[in-house]
Formats: sequence, C-alpha cells, structure tokens
Amino acid sequence: MNDCIFCKIVAGEIPSNRVYEDELIYAFTDIAPKASVHVLVIPKQHIARLDHANQEHASLLAHMMLSLPKIAESQGLKNGFRTIINTGPGGGQEVDHLHIHILGGSKMPGFN
Amino acid sequence: MNDCIFCKIVAGEIPSNRVYEDELIYAFTDIAPKASVHVLVIPKQHIARLDHANQEHASLLAHMMLSLPKIAESQGLKNGFRTIINTGPGGGQEVDHLHIHILGGSKMPGFN
Repeated sequence: MNDCIFCKIVAGEIPSNRVYEDELIYAFTDIAPKASVHVLVIPKQHIARLDHANQEHASLLAHMMLSLPKIAESQGLKNGFRTIINTGPGGGQEVDHLHIHILGGSKMPGFN
Repeated sequence: MNDCIFCKIVAGEIPSNRVYEDELIYAFTDIAPKASVHVLVIPKQHIARLDHANQEHASLLAHMMLSLPKIAESQGLKNGFRTIINTGPGGGQEVDHLHIHILGGSKMPGFN
C-alpha cells in the first residue's frame, strides 16, 4: 500500500488535478486522457481491484456509483458519460487500486 | 416501463440467454457481442439510467458491483474483465434500463 501511486495521490504526496473529494472518495483528471473529459474516481481506502471488494465495502461502492453522475456533470458532461472499470490484467487494469474511469465528450473509447 | 425491452427480458416475455439471476438482478449474454464474452447485468427493478438512481438504490447498486466479478468468473474470465456503463446519449446508452456490460477475452472494446 505504501507504494500505491493512487494512495499517494489521496495523501497529497503526488500532485493531482482534483475535481471532487469527500470523506470516502477522491476524483482527479487522468494524466493521459483518453477522451476530452477523463476523470478517475477512487476510494480513499486501498482496495486493489473490484474483485477484492466484499460486503464490507457495499456502502462505499454504492457511494461511488451514485457520485459518478454528479462528478460527470461537474465536468460539463450534461448529455451523458461512459464509465469503465478494468479489473485484473485480462481487463486491462494498470494500477492496482480500484478506479472508475469517467469518460465523455469527443474521442470517447469503448463501443463505436 | 411496459415497453422496456429489458423489463420484458426479466419477465421472460422476450427470450434471453441467462447466465445469472437472483432476487435483485438478472444477467444475460448480449445479442450483439462486442467481445468474446459480453454479458449484460441489469436490475430487475426498472431504473432507466445510472443518473436516475438515488440513495434508495444504494444496496442494489452495491449488490450489482459485488456480483460482477462472480458473474465474470462464471463465464471463464479468470484473468480479469472490463466493466462499461453507458449513461445517456452522450455516453452511448442504447436501452433506457440501467445495464452494466461485462466484457472479456479477445477483441475487448475500450482502451487499447
């Protein structure tokens, strides 16, 4: 956990462009955006992957889901947005700290 | 709601290839798969879009999130999977009943 880049971002040890924060979650712009809007929403608590979450994290996960539309709208995505979660190497996960991608605007990856 | 294709799938009025079902959610294979594994996970309750969900749906949303890894693994995705939620026209949502895509295996859309 000490080596987790996202834990360091939450702790302020690595700078980030914060777009939202509350007691449970932290959201910041992706440093290598894949769309005109690309935000990462992470739990402050270290959970490595979605498949490491369990019933103890239920309220946290629900809070993340319910926060996504508000964060997307705050970034100007009035007409909708895409959410992507990559789990494990087969899912393309690159950082082992659960993160939910919010994507929107032009050049949005995913389905055509 | 009576015209909702996913409500009709839940009700058995439209056939589907079911892969998982419990009291709250229903999962079935996408009829136009975008990857070698492509499953849709939907709440039995009609919620049109993620941004229509509210605190009343918190436990349902958490249950959906916690069920994703189990459903993915049941479909042979032992090495991980991708989750996509499209919200609204700007997010590419095509059916107005909240659905979570599970994608995995070859030809997975999303990030490169």
